[in-house]
Amino acid sequence: MFSGAQISLYPMTDGFVGVILDAITAMDPYRDRLRVVTDDISTLVVAPPEILFPVMRDFYAAAARTGHHVVMHATISRGCPGEPDDPMCATSSLPGPSEPLAERQQAARAAVAAAPVVGAETAAQFSLYVMGQIDGEDKHMEEIYGCIDFLKSSGTFDRSKNFCTRLKGDAGPVFATLFEAFCRFGPPEGHVTIDLTVSANSPTAR
Amino acid sequence: MFSGAQISLYPMTDGFVGVILDAITAMDPYRDRLRVVTDDISTLVVAPPEILFPVMRDFYAAAARTGHHVVMHATISRGCPGEPDDPMCATSSLPGPSEPLAERQQAARAAVAAAPVVGAETAAQFSLYVMGQIDGEDKHMEEIYGCIDFLKSSGTFDRSKNFCTRLKGDAGPVFATLFEAFCRFGPPEGHVTIDLTVSANSPTAR
Repeated sequence: MFSGAQISLYPMTDGFVGVILDAITAMDPYRDRLRVVTDDISTLVVAPPEILFPVMRDFYAAAARTGHHVVMHATISRGCPGEPDDPMCATSSLPGPSEPLAERQQAARAAVAAAPVVGAETAAQFSLYVMGQIDGEDKHMEEIYGCIDFLKSSGTFDRSKNFCTRLKGDAGPVFATLFEAFCRFGPPEGHVTIDLTVSANSPTAR
Repeated sequence: MFSGAQISLYPMTDGFVGVILDAITAMDPYRDRLRVVTDDISTLVVAPPEILFPVMRDFYAAAARTGHHVVMHATISRGCPGEPDDPMCATSSLPGPSEPLAERQQAARAAVAAAPVVGAETAAQFSLYVMGQIDGEDKHMEEIYGCIDFLKSSGTFDRSKNFCTRLKGDAGPVFATLFEAFCRFGPPEGHVTIDLTVSANSPTAR
């Protein structure tokens, strides 16, 4: 499998370069478990999901704690048929192929409840996309509706919007919710992606 | 059908509020063809694709012309099974259900070649997602590879990255390329989405 994300950080301040460079140091503890490639639009992080989501959480939280209005965007993907297998992405985070939806939802809720609090508030929204077939059938909306049921009982649910779902709260449980949505829904060998936006310190009312 | 986008603008300057408010006036000429809902994370624009892409182009171009480093992100969707039909989204931009891939690619190239130049440079990257079945089969990667072939001959192709494709050039042909990718690939009644990032005036080298 191949998994990772294209990640961008947008600090709404004249000093945006310094905020970005400081926040990147939050990735240092994970460096031996990921591969990074940066250009002018985004930074590719290749890693298994159990590393990728804590990396995004800590990167976002470091920027949010500056007090500036900052937004992190990530295009997250696993199992894209166009990407090569990579041993760096080996993971034990994906459920068995026939684990029932109700069990996956229960395990996801328990994981979010056990997530650490990291001390950075979030306003987040994301879309989950499930491509291809499951057991030879088109079940992508079943998996998405199953995930939405989990989200509504996750403790981090804010509200549904057109095309996406809003989450709120501390970055710890919010990124745990995103990790669970990404790993436990959609087939383990399938192509699953997330389009994620996380915002801190906006002057605009929710 | 229901189509639209969740759009966000990130100006990397202390004066970000003013840049956003000024850029929003670029949507004024289209106001009778779209519906807008704004919160602290994004602005929902509901419109048919032939309105939506020019709206995003002009909104982005207005912000880019300020000279600040600005990024626009959009989560674009058509045909999501979870959204209600909306007469506002009625469109003639989608091809017939059995139009061959080669004809669609040729028509897409011609449309990009005829696009107006608007005077704002872009560095763009996007992911196209095609959900569900086509003619009862899982053809989502065929459509994506067919779209990538079109992109490589579109005149706006920059390079492939993991999880996404980069485009470059004036916003006119670049947004025309995105419109063609969105409308001509994936089934006309299908669920198709784009995760789009467009950047201007970055201090970082490509």
